[in-house]
This record gives sequence, structure tokens and C-alpha cells, in this order.
Amino acid sequence: MMLETMFARACRPVLLAAAAASLLLGGCASAPLAVNGPASVEDLRLFPQSLETLAEQHGGPRGADTVLRSHEDARIDMARFRRRFFEPWDSPGVDSEALQGLLDELRRAPERRGYAENMHPWSDEAWSRMAKNADLPRMERLRVLPRMAITVRASDLRSAPTMKPRFSGLHEAGRGWPFDLFQYSRLHAGTPLAVYHKSRDGAWLLVQSSTAWGWVRAEDVAAAGENFRRLWRKTPLCAFVQEGVGLKFKALAGEGKASVRPGSYLASADIGAVLPSPFDGEVLLPMRGLDGEACAVRASFADYAAPSRDSTERYDMLSRPAVRMPLLLTPRAVARIGDRMMGQPYGWGGLYGDRDCSATMQDLFTPFGLWLPRNSSKQAQEGAALKLEGMSAEAKEKALREQAVPFRTLIAMPGHIGLYAGQWQGRAAMFHNMWGVRNTLPGGKAGRLVIGRAVVTGLRPGEERGDVDEGRLLIERVKGFAVLGE
Amino acid sequence: MMLETMFARACRPVLLAAAAASLLLGGCASAPLAVNGPASVEDLRLFPQSLETLAEQHGGPRGADTVLRSHEDARIDMARFRRRFFEPWDSPGVDSEALQGLLDELRRAPERRGYAENMHPWSDEAWSRMAKNADLPRMERLRVLPRMAITVRASDLRSAPTMKPRFSGLHEAGRGWPFDLFQYSRLHAGTPLAVYHKSRDGAWLLVQSSTAWGWVRAEDVAAAGENFRRLWRKTPLCAFVQEGVGLKFKALAGEGKASVRPGSYLASADIGAVLPSPFDGEVLLPMRGLDGEACAVRASFADYAAPSRDSTERYDMLSRPAVRMPLLLTPRAVARIGDRMMGQPYGWGGLYGDRDCSATMQDLFTPFGLWLPRNSSKQAQEGAALKLEGMSAEAKEKALREQAVPFRTLIAMPGHIGLYAGQWQGRAAMFHNMWGVRNTLPGGKAGRLVIGRAVVTGLRPGEERGDVDEGRLLIERVKGFAVLGE
Repeated sequence: MMLETMFARACRPVLLAAAAASLLLGGCASAPLAVNGPASVEDLRLFPQSLETLAEQHGGPRGADTVLRSHEDARIDMARFRRRFFEPWDSPGVDSEALQGLLDELRRAPERRGYAENMHPWSDEAWSRMAKNADLPRMERLRVLPRMAITVRASDLRSAPTMKPRFSGLHEAGRGWPFDLFQYSRLHAGTPLAVYHKSRDGAWLLVQSSTAWGWVRAEDVAAAGENFRRLWRKTPLCAFVQEGVGLKFKALAGEGKASVRPGSYLASADIGAVLPSPFDGEVLLPMRGLDGEACAVRASFADYAAPSRDSTERYDMLSRPAVRMPLLLTPRAVARIGDRMMGQPYGWGGLYGDRDCSATMQDLFTPFGLWLPRNSSKQAQEGAALKLEGMSAEAKEKALREQAVPFRTLIAMPGHIGLYAGQWQGRAAMFHNMWGVRNTLPGGKAGRLVIGRAVVTGLRPGEERGDVDEGRLLIERVKGFAVLGE
Repeated sequence: MMLETMFARACRPVLLAAAAASLLLGGCASAPLAVNGPASVEDLRLFPQSLETLAEQHGGPRGADTVLRSHEDARIDMARFRRRFFEPWDSPGVDSEALQGLLDELRRAPERRGYAENMHPWSDEAWSRMAKNADLPRMERLRVLPRMAITVRASDLRSAPTMKPRFSGLHEAGRGWPFDLFQYSRLHAGTPLAVYHKSRDGAWLLVQSSTAWGWVRAEDVAAAGENFRRLWRKTPLCAFVQEGVGLKFKALAGEGKASVRPGSYLASADIGAVLPSPFDGEVLLPMRGLDGEACAVRASFADYAAPSRDSTERYDMLSRPAVRMPLLLTPRAVARIGDRMMGQPYGWGGLYGDRDCSATMQDLFTPFGLWLPRNSSKQAQEGAALKLEGMSAEAKEKALREQAVPFRTLIAMPGHIGLYAGQWQGRAAMFHNMWGVRNTLPGGKAGRLVIGRAVVTGLRPGEERGDVDEGRLLIERVKGFAVLGE
């Protein structure tokens, strides 16, 4: 000990010299700490952080109120939305690719399991316990018919039956916390499901939703019997256009006496949640009975007073928490809903109840009856998709300017997606929930300038910075765009 | 743009030279990344990672089976345990210090709010929304009588009504993820509560538990009426001594026909969970009815077959998932339960369902009827507490050796606590769930060698390493010990 202490003391000047040297040579003593560090880019100042401002630039016949999708087309979109939304109930079936993915996840070789919540590689023991609980032999042959079900509250869809995280790295750019690779998606309250399998302890269910397969906690799900499903299907759907709307008990939807106190809290709904709505100002919601069956109840909105008869607000659909689907697609309507997500934190796979890039697009277009897949690369193939790979940055921007429809077009990169919000001072504007801008750290290591929220930028965010390489700018990675609803 | 690219290219050799230089001078290009990085220490190899092995060194009259607390004393301990456990129901009352803490938390000045899940400081907007939802004016005057309640499953006790995290830093030692400062504790299923207040949206309840005040999600809590509470109090309590025990529905505890399918999953219980047990092999559990009231049901254990009449296992209490409280305190019993936690990941405030240092001690001693506070500094004042501050390392070790009772004594440091597990080859052994060993990075910055799990070490873990300063070793920070149950 004594020797070591002496050594440590003797060493000090040398270490200080090293620190000084490295400061001179590029600040390596402190800079590498920010492999993933909070940052800003010029674009956040150059572009208005308001979609409504951008919508007002719209050149269509009625400006921001130009109808981007006719009533007729919207009806077609909505029919497709309903088909996808109810697919787990209407035509459930094992998606062998999805199932294989979930099996592969649990069968990862020890060296491919990544890191656990204590920064150490997942221990063999913890992994085996989880995999055993998943009951792989039964998972392999899902021959039994699924049970129809529904989420009774917002719930995490996981790729393994655990709330513990799995990280592919610790300190590398875009790895480690918060990129929990077990987190697949966040399901809204009232999402129709087909249940195929459960974990041995009964705590987790393996389910099919309209957008993905995965594991959800059993307590967040109730069985949906035939009467319940009939009611759900025959009642018009509405979509939430405001965030964090508390839903409170009003009455049972069917017959029978309610033992629930009116006003009791039931669940919360965010933009993109879809629930049946028999009347204006209320929705149907499933509650989970002691028997695990879903019971339909009528719910009203907390902290919301309907506008009076003579108020002009009555005609402003978007001042309500939820609107009858499909809402008419206009730049202004997209902008107003998008602006309610502006600045909201990025959440990989819906972690912490936040949205990632593709969930932002999915929830944004839901009120308009435009169904989107959950994954950014699949979203890029929606509607009329145009490939831009291999083109120069200038050619890509020209194509966008000339062929993309603002507020109805997604701009796609590998692993990222956002909304084309038209031009601002001659540059394409994009609304997206982004984790970060790729930069290069002193020493050549890859880093991330973490933006970590929903913002408006151009296609070259960070170009003003010396540590952002031109070849890694968003525009270089743009691979195409998709005009929705074609 | 062109210029920047050229600059970047020209820079490359210089940066490589810098990296090479820094490698020579102490590896600064890569080392600082591991401010918090996974590591190991010699002690994990030198000490057996088995409490039972250590218990077998015990010098008492019956070795590892020496009774450390007489039946008489255990009865006194148990009476105190019950008093504390049921305190929220028996003598609820506003703890003004705890309430003030929760109010202060929500009233933090902007510069003291720390970082959110996107690595940026908490935004004013998000903070205000949360604080508004907490309904501070009503929180300030909690005059209404509380409602008695109980957790229906394991639930997170938070210091603010949100599941989003709050970090005091990003990349500093012992800060940033996973140290979510809003996470206060993890409550087991079946924890008696007094409910004083709810958030405006109804999603969060402000509760008093036996060990702490905080916010829990409304869906995890059911109201406990008088009959329910009477049943809970008159039935003998049992404590879980195994991890992840699935509880399945067996029958209603009272009269009435059960609409629940026998075998349905209800909840999971871990070591330290306490539930009434009318019969061997089953426990009572609260289920939440549609009306929000707790309904008592009889639950059996998933994946557990009771030993047959002629099996010797019948006499091995610790082979069962749960035991009648209090279990007789012996080194072997403590060791066998502790060994089931050995290697388990560290979880600040019970995050991810893991345990931190004090939760490990609390849950370890619960089966023996020894009630412990939630907080390490308060645990240090339990039983017969001996102060060791200001003493030399040698004097501290001598005091431990001569006055502490192995397997019944906590060793306390500021912000950390563990079990004294006797001597191993002449050195004090400690069982503790530890985040990391303090080290010094090149350049003088503080770091953590992350152990991140429950381990056995001596009081100088890391002393063999050149980057761990002798003055920061655990033994230097030991401030006292507490012999439990005096």
C-alpha cells in the first residue's frame, strides 16, 4: 500500500503533463467523455420550432388549409386503418418471421447478449432464468388458437419477458443507455391484441399487435370476449390529439350496476391513441375485471370542459382531447398536432413513455386515418415511395422540392425518419424526433451531439460545426421519401 | 464545407499523433470513457462468493447453526416488525419532514432540476406540467383523513409523480444513469399504505408506507376496507425467502363465487415480501376490483410442489418460497437467504426491480422479523450502534472483530451499508450490494470501478489497484456498526 501511494504521488506531475499535452493536442482529457453528450446545432435557431409557422408558407390553393387528401381518399385510408388496427382480432395468424426474431433474441449466444443494468455483460444465470421463464419449447410451436385481448392502459412491448434492459455497448455513440434493445414499442391503451403464449410465471404474454409482436405485462391486458369486440368494432373510432389526457370513469357501457365511483381514474391517453367514441366528449375504455375479462366502460376526459354552445371553439376540432377519425388532412392540422409533440424528449422504442422517430410519425398521422408501420424502414415504403439513393445532395433536394408534398411526405434515412415540412428560406425543413447528430471526436472516434427531442431542422443539421463531417450529414444518408396515402 | 473537409483530412495525422502521445502518457484517449465502467477487484477472488461458506467459519456453540436471537427476543423483534409494518393503517399521520421533502423536490429551482432522459436539463415545460399535475396547493395542506390501501403488486415509490428520470449529472462518477433520483424505493406486493392525496390526472397517489413517503401509480394500489384490514392483521405473516415467485389464484378468501380461473397469474413476490399466510403453501393477496377496492384472495406458488410427507425437505423451511415469520436467526439461515441474492445486479432505489445496498439489508432481515428502515444512514442507527468515526483502520477492524456479531451486524459508511459476515483468513468479510469502488482517473478525475452487484469483499476492495487511493478505501469510510435487535 505504502509503495503504491508513493507511486501515485510520484505519478501526479506526469499525469498533469499528460493532461496538459492532450489539451494542446485536441482536448482529449475531457472531450471523450461526451461521446454522447447534450448539444445544440445552428438549425434549431435558423428554422422556426413551430410547424404552424411552416404550414403558413404552404403554397396550395388554400394555403395552410389546403386539403391534402380528399374526403373520398380519406375514406379509403380509414378503411385500411381499421383493417390494420383490428387485424389481431379479425385475422390473427402466426407471423413466423416475427416469432423467429423473438426466439432468436432469447437464444443469443453469451457473447452477443450485451450489457445489463449494472454495466456488466448479462450474467449467464440471469439470462437463463429469463429464457426459462419464456418457455421456449412451447414458444416454438404456437399451434393453439390465440385469445383475443386488449391493453387496458399504455404498456411496453418488449422483445423479451423482462423490464430489465439490454444494451449493445456502454460508452459508444448511439449505444448504451437509453438504447435498451429489449424495448420494442409502446402500445396505447385500447390496442387490440391476439395472445398466443405466456411466460411460465404468468407475468408476461406473447402478443400480436397491429404493428408488432412482442411481450407485454399480463396486468396491462384483458381478454376481449365476442360481445366486447363487437361493441369495439361497431362504435366509430376517435384518435387523441392531445398529450396526457386522463380518462375518468363515467358509466358502464352495457347494462348492470357500476360499483365504480364516477370520476375514478382509469388510464391516460396520448396523441395517437385510438378508442371508440359513442358520443362527443367521451370514449369507451376497457377495464380489467377480477376474472381478467375486459369490461367496456364510458370514460370522460379529466381537466376538460366542453366548449359552450355559442363558443366558436366548438368548431375547432383540435381544441378537443380527441377527434372522430379521420380528421381532414391539411398542413395546419398536421402542424397543430405536431407542435404538441415539439420539444418532447426522444424515447427509444417508446422508453419512458416518450417517442422515437417512427413512433412520432405513426402517432402524428393516426388522427388522419393514415396507418403507418412501427419501423422507420417500413414506413419509408408506404404510399408513393421514391428512391433517392446514389443521388447527389443537390439532386435529392431538388427531387424533394419538386415532387414531395409538404406535411404529407416522410423523408427516410437508414434507421431514421421524419416529416417533410416544406421549404424555409430556400431549404427543406424536416420535423423529426432525433437522438443526435453524428460527429467525430478528437482521435477519430464517432460521437453523438445529442439533440434528444422533436425538432425542426434542415437536412444538414450541424454542418456549421468543425466536428461534423460533411459525408455524415442527414442529406447524405437520405435514401428516399414517401408520399403517404397513394 | 469544402474547407472544413480539407481541414478534417489534414488534421488526421495530428489527431493520431495525439492519441499515440496520450497512450504513452497514461492512455487518456480511452480511459476517461470509463468514468463509470465495469470492473473487477481482487477481493471477489480472495473471498468466497458464498455466505454459507463464511457461516461455516462461525465460532458459536453450534457453528453455523448457532442461534443469534433467542425465541423470546425474536418475539419482541416480531412485535416491533408488525407495529412498523401496519403503522400506515394503525397510526397514520402526516410526517411533515417527509412531506416537506416531497414539496421541495417539486419546487426545485430550474438550475437544480438536473438532467432528463434525453441528457438535456429538464425542460421548464415538462417540469411545470409535472408539478402542476402534482397539485401543490392541495399537497401543502393534507388535512383530509387518509384512505387505507395496499399495493396489489410490486410498485415503484417515486419522489415525483412521473416515471421519467432525474439525474444529477451525466458523466460524473456515481451520477447519471442509472441513478434516477426520482426513484425512492420498490414496494413489495401487499404493502400497507395510507393514501393522502392524488395527482390531478388521477394517475398517481401520494402515500405513506412503513418506511417512506412518496408517489405510486394508482393502478398498483387498491383501497383496503375495514374487513380487509382485519383479515390482514389477524392472519399470521409470512415472508418470502426466494426470488421471483409467481403467485396464482386459488380461491377467494371470503365468501362469494370466484369468477377468476384457478391458476391465473396474480403477482410476483421476491425475498422480503410479506403476506398473510393462513395455511402452509399459500398466502393471501389483494386483488384490485373494478371499484378500486382490495379483495382478498388465496394464492398458491407457481412452479412449486410441496415436499411429500416422508421427504426430509419438509423440515427445511428455506426450501419453501415463503416462511412463517419470524424465522430463527442463525448464520446459516441468513447465509442461505443472502446467497440467493448473491451476484444480483445493483438497482438504485429499487430501479428495474433490483436492490441497492440498504434494500438488500432490509429484505435480508425481514424473514427474521427484524424491521429495518429504508435508508442506509438510518439503518446504521438500529439496534446497538457503535460509532467508529475518527478511528484508525486498524482500530476499526479490531472493534469489528471483538464486538460485532457476524451475520447480525451491519457495517455502515456514509451512503453505504452491508452485512458483517465474520472473518475470512484474518480479514473482515462484508456482504453488500455495491455500485462501485472509487478510483482516480488519469488527470485526477474521480471514477467508479463498477462492481454493480451483491458480492462478498473485505473492507479494502480495490487496494491492489494503482488507481484506487488508500484514503478512499471502504475501511476509511466506515463510520460505525449496528448489532441488530438490541
